[in-house]
Amino acid sequence: MDIRQLVFLGASVLAAPAPGPAMADDMLYVQQAEIEIDPAQLDAYRAAVTEQIETAIRVEPGVLALYAVSEQENPARVKVFEIYRDTDAYRSHLETAHFKKYKATVENMVRSLKLVRTTPIMLGTKPK
Amino acid sequence: MDIRQLVFLGASVLAAPAPGPAMADDMLYVQQAEIEIDPAQLDAYRAAVTEQIETAIRVEPGVLALYAVSEQENPARVKVFEIYRDTDAYRSHLETAHFKKYKATVENMVRSLKLVRTTPIMLGTKPK
Repeated sequence: MDIRQLVFLGASVLAAPAPGPAMADDMLYVQQAEIEIDPAQLDAYRAAVTEQIETAIRVEPGVLALYAVSEQENPARVKVFEIYRDTDAYRSHLETAHFKKYKATVENMVRSLKLVRTTPIMLGTKPK
Repeated sequence: MDIRQLVFLGASVLAAPAPGPAMADDMLYVQQAEIEIDPAQLDAYRAAVTEQIETAIRVEPGVLALYAVSEQENPARVKVFEIYRDTDAYRSHLETAHFKKYKATVENMVRSLKLVRTTPIMLGTKPK
């Protein structure tokens, strides 16, 4: 499996459960994880985070988007842009078996982790 | 208009023009803008970036996602997570009237701007 391949899990609806033109920003839980990976273990890290994201998107209704990217100038610096339906969805995510497995798998690959909580200004995505 | 309101422009299809389970990551142009705003002009900046994003998503086929967020601990630190269909779509975006208007409008609001080009590892979004 090419772990760097990009898997789009179908069309996206970020506005749930009631898609509409406007949505209070405090309904969503949006943050960015800034992660420094041991460069020697980067391939293994990519595989682990890919598996975690695939599973979370598939089985957790409140996980709306998880975008994991490497900085091109320093691929060991990974960012994950995360959108959850609300705070409860985020808390629930942290308790899932697949997230706990990911955390255990990457424990010795991650040199530092910073979670940056954010307030959405405008989340624009292409309409169908 | 509440410029902090979250406008989801309908359901999203990030994988275009041929949605499928896998897509070469080098087809997409993905970057993050890290922007420091003059705190006194933050409301005006939010209005400008919101207008720019709304227009880009609506009129540019190659602009797949533009997510603008403020850091909660320091709202003057803004991040924009950007996904374009390819490099040409990004270059084209820079030449549009709405982007040039945005750049001119925010010129004196922006204290610093860093563009971080990234390589996708996994871009997961909720299927319909």
